[in-house]
Amino acid sequence: MALEIDHVAIAVADLDDAAERYSRALGAEVIRETVESEGVNVAIMKLGSARVELISPIGEDGPIAAFLKKRGEGIHHMALRTDDIDAEVSRMEGCGLRFLGGVRAGSEGTRVTFIHPKSLNGVLTELCSGGA
Amino acid sequence: MALEIDHVAIAVADLDDAAERYSRALGAEVIRETVESEGVNVAIMKLGSARVELISPIGEDGPIAAFLKKRGEGIHHMALRTDDIDAEVSRMEGCGLRFLGGVRAGSEGTRVTFIHPKSLNGVLTELCSGGA
Repeated sequence: MALEIDHVAIAVADLDDAAERYSRALGAEVIRETVESEGVNVAIMKLGSARVELISPIGEDGPIAAFLKKRGEGIHHMALRTDDIDAEVSRMEGCGLRFLGGVRAGSEGTRVTFIHPKSLNGVLTELCSGGA
Repeated sequence: MALEIDHVAIAVADLDDAAERYSRALGAEVIRETVESEGVNVAIMKLGSARVELISPIGEDGPIAAFLKKRGEGIHHMALRTDDIDAEVSRMEGCGLRFLGGVRAGSEGTRVTFIHPKSLNGVLTELCSGGA
């Protein structure tokens, strides 16, 4: 049940441009994905057992569009992978951590939730399990 | 020579308080370190092959103190690990990436340099090699 870093998610304005730049810089292939439920297009690059994910809003609304307007491009959140997300959430709630919503379906068979940034010194942290 | 995520570095104001909170939240032991050359105290938690690092300024000056004043607590940079940092820097410079200073000694036998955030959509990215 030990946690591992699953990915670092970076908010970008122009996904095509950013994906090309990062792909060359990291020497990694890009997998593209659309997550309708979150209103984002995603460009994923695998680095060992973890990933760098570029995320860009589909429209002009939603949290990623708001983040870009307020902060500009940059790291949006980090994600930690667990084998048992329900047990991990219970354990963390026992430590006083607050969550943004319950565990829900993420992309490609994953299950996800988010730890409130106020619980971790300003760091929005995704907790995820399952998937490829 | 493939890159991997080495760590995510989080700037915090009160290192003792943050280290206790993160240690409990992540279920990981904390290794403390002082990096005089960077003017920071560090609390390191291993998560699989990567780490979460909390960094706090020793004094009231320096880049981490400035970051905290301007942005508040949060993710400061991500770090990518390579087996051959000199070759990686050459390759990346060939892709047009700019670096903040040359490759220098980091903590515990590592060698490090930083990619300019303007080269990677606002993300300050450390490149590191060697060490434990």
